[in-house]
Amino acid sequence: IMAADLLQNVHTRYNLLTAEWVLVSPHRNKRPWQGKVEAAAGLQRPAYMADCYLCPGNHRAEGVENPVYTEPYAFTNDFAALIPGTPEGRFEEDGLLIAHSQQGQCRVICFSPRHDLTLPQMELAAIEKVVQLWKEEYVNLAANPSIRYIQIFENKGEIMGCSNPHPHGQIWAQSEVPTELVKETRQQQAYYEKNHRSLLADYLALEEKKKERIVCENEHFVALVPFWAVWPYETMIISRRQVADIREFTPAEQAALASILKRLTTRYDNLFQTSFPYSAGMHQAPVNDGAYPGWHWHMHFYPPLLRSATVKKFMVGYEMLASPQRDITPEMAAAQLQVMREVHFLEK
Amino acid sequence: IMAADLLQNVHTRYNLLTAEWVLVSPHRNKRPWQGKVEAAAGLQRPAYMADCYLCPGNHRAEGVENPVYTEPYAFTNDFAALIPGTPEGRFEEDGLLIAHSQQGQCRVICFSPRHDLTLPQMELAAIEKVVQLWKEEYVNLAANPSIRYIQIFENKGEIMGCSNPHPHGQIWAQSEVPTELVKETRQQQAYYEKNHRSLLADYLALEEKKKERIVCENEHFVALVPFWAVWPYETMIISRRQVADIREFTPAEQAALASILKRLTTRYDNLFQTSFPYSAGMHQAPVNDGAYPGWHWHMHFYPPLLRSATVKKFMVGYEMLASPQRDITPEMAAAQLQVMREVHFLEK
Ligand SMILES: O=P(O)(O)O[C@H]1O[C@H](CO)[C@@H](O)[C@H](O)[C@H]1O
Ligand SMILES: O=P(O)(O)O[C@H]1O[C@H](CO)[C@@H](O)[C@H](O)[C@H]1O
Repeated sequence: IMAADLLQNVHTRYNLLTAEWVLVSPHRNKRPWQGKVEAAAGLQRPAYMADCYLCPGNHRAEGVENPVYTEPYAFTNDFAALIPGTPEGRFEEDGLLIAHSQQGQCRVICFSPRHDLTLPQMELAAIEKVVQLWKEEYVNLAANPSIRYIQIFENKGEIMGCSNPHPHGQIWAQSEVPTELVKETRQQQAYYEKNHRSLLADYLALEEKKKERIVCENEHFVALVPFWAVWPYETMIISRRQVADIREFTPAEQAALASILKRLTTRYDNLFQTSFPYSAGMHQAPVNDGAYPGWHWHMHFYPPLLRSATVKKFMVGYEMLASPQRDITPEMAAAQLQVMREVHFLEK
Repeated sequence: IMAADLLQNVHTRYNLLTAEWVLVSPHRNKRPWQGKVEAAAGLQRPAYMADCYLCPGNHRAEGVENPVYTEPYAFTNDFAALIPGTPEGRFEEDGLLIAHSQQGQCRVICFSPRHDLTLPQMELAAIEKVVQLWKEEYVNLAANPSIRYIQIFENKGEIMGCSNPHPHGQIWAQSEVPTELVKETRQQQAYYEKNHRSLLADYLALEEKKKERIVCENEHFVALVPFWAVWPYETMIISRRQVADIREFTPAEQAALASILKRLTTRYDNLFQTSFPYSAGMHQAPVNDGAYPGWHWHMHFYPPLLRSATVKKFMVGYEMLASPQRDITPEMAAAQLQVMREVHFLEK
């Protein structure tokens, strides 16, 4: 088949990072939608809210009080899914019931003292401080030798299970490498062993030649819609320099990451003139586990919206049981994101 | 670690069918929820609705008219994600952009002419006719030699992306085996080659000994919460006899499947006194592709609700990027489903 067929005929695309496939049905975006309509994200919030457990000076669960922080602020999640003191061990019965205990820690990162902001609305200098705090947290968590993997992520918007609109993200660190990272490690290491080059560096070089899926870029990072994107407006930020994790970024790279984060999330907000929901997170090499010469830092954005601020893509029946499926092509999504302005629509 | 630790300490469990892991955080069900509250499913609907495109005699998209059907009724999806005439072919560029064309067909199955019913509310004899129609559709779709896999499924409830409450399911048939089925085929075949027995038969025998995760059973089927369940109230129906797909079921087995479907979905509705949403579907062997002696028919139920009719589990940031995570143990969920009555709460 030809590249042009990919824009109109049903096909599957191969995800280089996971070795899994996505079903693409280009014509299906003509489907009418009579199903669930989500509430659009509220755009006006006060800068401080007395009943927000993330605002400076307020009480959290169990009576802890937040400091009156003025810069990004991190603390241990009061309802953490991973806990440091968990006893070690493995469970097995007849080779059929298999479980491993899991040590770890969950951190919460308030991006700003201001309740009313989100990443795209923050000053560049303030986002740089978030990047710096991510790095410091990563260094601290990796200093614990029982930790093998550290997941930095953000759930943005009620529709993505975020229970508080105060701008914040999370970091979960744990003693084993979780499933998605096992896949990405396997694929990147196999490519590296065969080609002695980074899989994502080669992929990025090809996308730079083609240009059609690139959304925006700067000296150190490129944001693009991956060829195998699953979510309608899924994107990926890839560092031009191959590094295993955030600890290796220079000050110039940190500033460039802050900048591309602001630019990409501004385009997202402008797309449907809403506070664009997503789950986003960095993928980085396992820690305290030797060298992973194939690993290449990148960050995924998985946004649920399909056609407007209120109609999302449901990854349900077929998708849960068989394979992810998408209705608009990655190239259509990229074309829309490419023409967005980088001035936030609320700024005018 | 001991079995008792699995009820209180953070751990990961291994999914025998996919070789993937789920993170279990038993203590986390104490977490308060201030996030998104879903609308509860509407319970009262008229038996016929003039503007429902699935009701008998009504117009569908593109002007097609439904017959005045009185039994389960199947037709080709008007907005199908898979289309029969798609030209065959493979696309590859530098080993980095890889795509395959995909032939296939999407069918819709109206379970009942009555707009106001759902599976648990239907008469047993009417559900038996649905099972019979599933089988006939499967036979027809498998008669096309280009088809390799047939996914029978149901999205129930608005929250699961179902765009019409008229009771219906779907069947997607396609020319390649999709990702989740590649995993399950690999795991079942590997076990079979090593042990010369069905993986799920051995697993079922162990669960029958333990009893703690079994929800209900009859002569031919068992419904249980799998040890590695991801969704809070996820269950699986396993056939006692190892068959590769629905075509092999005897009339007695078909009747028993209808019966356990009614009993399991009634328990679900009774749990939160709501029309319990889920995505459910059968997993069966690939077709037109030789013998798969390890394959064992089963059906998954993936329901999103966590604590009530209006609070669901969000599989977002950490889950999308790293690994599924659950807050109540499979054993807690099974214990709740075990004590449910099998008379529907609306019947009194
Ligand atoms: O075809 P339907 O029921 O309108 O659509 C629903 O099920 C499909 C198959 O799981 C999904 O791809 C859609 O996102 C969902 O809304
Ligand atoms: O910890 P939070 O933000 O309250 O919770 C949110 O993110 C977690 C990590 O992705 C998920 O496990 C929860 O389901 C979701 O509601």
